[in-house]
Amino acid sequence: MTARRLHRMRQTLEHRQPDLQVLLDQVHKPHNLSAILRTCDAVGVPRAHAVSRHQDFTVHRAASSGTGQWVDVQTHTDLPAAIRTVQGAGMKVYAAHLSEVAVDYRAVDFTQPCCLLLGAEKEGVSAEGAELADGHVIIPMFGLGASLNVSVAAAVILFEAQRQRLAAGLYEQPRLPEAEIRRTLVEWLHP
Amino acid sequence: MTARRLHRMRQTLEHRQPDLQVLLDQVHKPHNLSAILRTCDAVGVPRAHAVSRHQDFTVHRAASSGTGQWVDVQTHTDLPAAIRTVQGAGMKVYAAHLSEVAVDYRAVDFTQPCCLLLGAEKEGVSAEGAELADGHVIIPMFGLGASLNVSVAAAVILFEAQRQRLAAGLYEQPRLPEAEIRRTLVEWLHP
Ligand SMILES: C[S@@+](CC[C@H](N)C(=O)[O-])C[C@H]1O[C@@H](n2cnc3c(N)ncnc32)[C@H](O)[C@@H]1O
Ligand SMILES: C[S@@+](CC[C@H](N)C(=O)[O-])C[C@H]1O[C@@H](n2cnc3c(N)ncnc32)[C@H](O)[C@@H]1O
Repeated sequence: MTARRLHRMRQTLEHRQPDLQVLLDQVHKPHNLSAILRTCDAVGVPRAHAVSRHQDFTVHRAASSGTGQWVDVQTHTDLPAAIRTVQGAGMKVYAAHLSEVAVDYRAVDFTQPCCLLLGAEKEGVSAEGAELADGHVIIPMFGLGASLNVSVAAAVILFEAQRQRLAAGLYEQPRLPEAEIRRTLVEWLHP
Repeated sequence: MTARRLHRMRQTLEHRQPDLQVLLDQVHKPHNLSAILRTCDAVGVPRAHAVSRHQDFTVHRAASSGTGQWVDVQTHTDLPAAIRTVQGAGMKVYAAHLSEVAVDYRAVDFTQPCCLLLGAEKEGVSAEGAELADGHVIIPMFGLGASLNVSVAAAVILFEAQRQRLAAGLYEQPRLPEAEIRRTLVEWLHP
């Protein structure tokens, strides 16, 4: 533990965006979970919610290795419970989902409290998820493939959120309460 | 083969951006190659160059399955040869590389002929690649992790290129010669 490391931990926590989160519905491939958590850390997403039918150890493993350690992963028993939790915390849930009512991701205001819902690798966002979400967003596709890799889709949208929040000055002041920053620093110093 | 499928193939080719390509230097994990080719297809990148020490079958396998079939993968014996090919075709090579001279990717003009150079999962962009490239670009990171997954990094930059090219009207007219579009349609109709 060096002074520089402690400083970087504090800087990270001072960039965290408490009202920007993700919700993974049955996303299960370890490399996808790992890539998503890496992106969350880079953009300042402090928490990822995961719904997993099989109580995947992969989610927990991803959460405790590499960059996963710096992003809180909260697991839920079912999708409605997860969505209730997130909406209850004041965030709009946007499903990354190719539907008829989907809006281009570049036209959505991600500076407002929001949570990005991503679907499983094969099944995509469930009918239930599409129904309970506050809106759907799509990334325009100009080829023959119908969809992007889920961690790619997550990142494209999250870095648009980063761009918008940078422009709005949301990274300039700490947005987590100081007490929470200190509590997290202590946790990170004692893994 | 349906009329609709043929129409979608033509539409895809009419969106291809011949002067927007990628160069993968020792990128080897199959899931990363697959995700990158999926992104290329979605953004209109018609060709990916790959340099692989072990003459990876994985590159060839990624190229022939899923979305890989719609993106041409050209392999090269070594990185200087690959860079010479791309620069010889008039494209600037931008290395996605965290160096002191790296520019924020949002400040780069991707409407000009360019090729994105991505580094290997562990080693990153080689010293040789960093030296031969025309410039370095970085994606700002606000966390404790030092880098993003390579397919995530590729997508974040390529969708910024898509955004810029959409704004510049570069997807409005076919940019591949009609003869090449027809030749490719014939290839795609006879896999
Ligand atoms: C591999 S895709 C799922 C494909 C599935 N066959 C379907 O119909 O959605 C996994 C997840 O990535 C996200 N995704 C992939 N491509 C997307 C795009 N172009 N726009 C928005 N989200 C996308 C969605 O959340 C999707 O559920
Ligand atoms: C996993 S990273 C390589 C990490 C390696 N330890 C290094 O020092 O570069 C794989 C590739 O993804 C790209 N990449 C990852 N994060 C990036 C970022 N924040 N900005 C630009 N490119 C990035 C780079 O091309 C990099 O070579």
